[in-house]
Amino acid sequence: MVNRNSKRLGQERSVIREIFEYANERKREIGAENVFDFSLGNPGVPAPPAVNAEIVRLTEEMPPLALHGYTSAPGAPDVREAVAAYIRTAFGVPMSADMVYMTCGAAASLAVTLRALCEEGDEIVAITPCFPEYRVFAEAAGGRFVEVPAGEGFHPDMAALKAAIGKRTKAVILNSPNNPTGVVYGAEELSALGALLHDAGARNGSPVFLIADEPYRELTYGAAVPYPMVHYANTVVCYSFSKSLSLAGERIGYIAVSPRCAGAADVFSAVCGAARALGYVCAPSLFQRVAASCLGMSGDVEEYRKNRDLLYSFLTQCGFSCVPPEGAFYLFMRSPEPDAVAFCERAKRHELLFVPSDGFGVKGYVRISYCVERAVIERSLPAFGALAREYGLIG
Amino acid sequence: MVNRNSKRLGQERSVIREIFEYANERKREIGAENVFDFSLGNPGVPAPPAVNAEIVRLTEEMPPLALHGYTSAPGAPDVREAVAAYIRTAFGVPMSADMVYMTCGAAASLAVTLRALCEEGDEIVAITPCFPEYRVFAEAAGGRFVEVPAGEGFHPDMAALKAAIGKRTKAVILNSPNNPTGVVYGAEELSALGALLHDAGARNGSPVFLIADEPYRELTYGAAVPYPMVHYANTVVCYSFSKSLSLAGERIGYIAVSPRCAGAADVFSAVCGAARALGYVCAPSLFQRVAASCLGMSGDVEEYRKNRDLLYSFLTQCGFSCVPPEGAFYLFMRSPEPDAVAFCERAKRHELLFVPSDGFGVKGYVRISYCVERAVIERSLPAFGALAREYGLIG
Repeated sequence: MVNRNSKRLGQERSVIREIFEYANERKREIGAENVFDFSLGNPGVPAPPAVNAEIVRLTEEMPPLALHGYTSAPGAPDVREAVAAYIRTAFGVPMSADMVYMTCGAAASLAVTLRALCEEGDEIVAITPCFPEYRVFAEAAGGRFVEVPAGEGFHPDMAALKAAIGKRTKAVILNSPNNPTGVVYGAEELSALGALLHDAGARNGSPVFLIADEPYRELTYGAAVPYPMVHYANTVVCYSFSKSLSLAGERIGYIAVSPRCAGAADVFSAVCGAARALGYVCAPSLFQRVAASCLGMSGDVEEYRKNRDLLYSFLTQCGFSCVPPEGAFYLFMRSPEPDAVAFCERAKRHELLFVPSDGFGVKGYVRISYCVERAVIERSLPAFGALAREYGLIG
Repeated sequence: MVNRNSKRLGQERSVIREIFEYANERKREIGAENVFDFSLGNPGVPAPPAVNAEIVRLTEEMPPLALHGYTSAPGAPDVREAVAAYIRTAFGVPMSADMVYMTCGAAASLAVTLRALCEEGDEIVAITPCFPEYRVFAEAAGGRFVEVPAGEGFHPDMAALKAAIGKRTKAVILNSPNNPTGVVYGAEELSALGALLHDAGARNGSPVFLIADEPYRELTYGAAVPYPMVHYANTVVCYSFSKSLSLAGERIGYIAVSPRCAGAADVFSAVCGAARALGYVCAPSLFQRVAASCLGMSGDVEEYRKNRDLLYSFLTQCGFSCVPPEGAFYLFMRSPEPDAVAFCERAKRHELLFVPSDGFGVKGYVRISYCVERAVIERSLPAFGALAREYGLIG
């Protein structure tokens, strides 16, 4: 009666969203201060003050018809130029405004880019653990989703990638700073990956694209985040302002196609067509302008660093084992029992909510989102301690 | 190298968007005041003052994390409840919040609903002339798009609809007040259509849904706009605030599934799943709240009425033949030569820009969007007069 696949996706929901909804319910039941919700990547430091100032300024100063009316489908021309100029200056890449497509956030950027590139049966490769919705978007675009386990320290395993990339590989999705591990990939890694994709493209007689999913670019604790376009021509960057500007609900981001990409104009046309088919008329117009005025800004990353340091040091003292997080706002912690889902259920009894790694494509870990108020972390420490004792990690 | 269909859709662009882009270019060339752009349904009266007041109030008063953070995928609970309460009160339908899904505008509402309902090869019926993107969304959802010509006065032709609805018909899309004709369908028509769909569903052993695309509901000049759910149970309303609140660029609307719909919970699950697959994480959070505060409001419809009266009376005096417009902000005018595309090209030489009806699925008409400033209409009259003389309609 309805589309079976849509119904299935709607009933399953994303594991992360499921826990988010449980958390909201639980907060209503026992009080928000008694639930330690580390499930969702909902930014926990407020938007930089310039964001709200700009919302108010635009609303008060710009003629409402121009402010709230349709923009061109790829975005307001001055906004696209501002984004292109920012990319040129910040990363030394010859970006032009006509290769920038403003979107409704990272999920839209990815869904559109995959539909733009993918023919039925093409393969989309991602390194696991990875964001669970990659599979949903790739399959919705008619693609076959191929998972390649990360190597040492959750960095890309070049040999495994090389083995996985074949004749039908259309693109590799890269996400650094990484969700869920917090790992940041270095310039040498991007260069090596670029060389690998270049060779695969030459063998295939058709480019293998790099899709760089970059919502966490600004959220690092010292590590440099190299720009993928510098290291490989056939790159499409899927960016979102959700995390940098703490605007996750406002749905604003962009797709930037490298002007050095093979068939760049065709890729951009396909982006336009894919967005059209998916019902994206234009990105929200007020927030296009807010984003353009706040390029390069971010919420107070120091707050996330303090959260990270507090939680990481406490958890390791408790005997838990975590991947050292260099960016984003996630701790990837080894489950003290093999079944991470069972571990999460045990943690729930202490009102600790986090996400088992199974949905990210690996077993035996949990993702702890530390983009929460400091007080939540502080109040949660006794619960983490109790959990560690339950597993005999501390006496 | 890229998806052929996405590339084609991106290169063709929508005819309407194409003219919109031409208009912007032409305005830069000869000055905005010399171009009479009647191409796009971009609202021409400002948002009601409450909209901007609410944007500023929310921005200044609501904690930024709550204001700009993710909402639940179907929308903030209080927003969904406000929409449901509005529908209950305004239309006497037992709507509940859990049947309301906030979206990024009408295009998103339609793309999501079609993907929610449609299995590969299902037929989606629309009455032509109709919004050209219906076909794009239906085909993107795997559907086969079936056009049924409107009857007398561009009202639904029940006999033709009956003949067109078959075993594979999944849904009929209805749009009243209508784009591009401005016609409003009456309660008897909706009842007759409801009976027809009910019988077809009984024959098929599976419901035939009515998808009511309603961005123009508030924009009428006296005609009552009956609520489709009252007349047929298996109805999904695709609403947008774009036109009523003059917020077309902000992308905010909703899907409301009739609680009396067959398998309503499954339909709603499928809506959730389809939105997820298309990359819609949640509707823009600030504008969810703005819309909830401004339910039932609209920009100054009197301004549109004055535009309509001025243009309609002048054009008919000039010998042009127009469908009497009862709602929306479009005049549907017969082309004085059989080829409406050629007519539009001739009109362009007078800097008059409108859209040939071919893209709407009928030949021999043009759509004139009169949602422009009065002064544009006033300045355009001599050009319309010259065009009428060129065709020998007046001396």
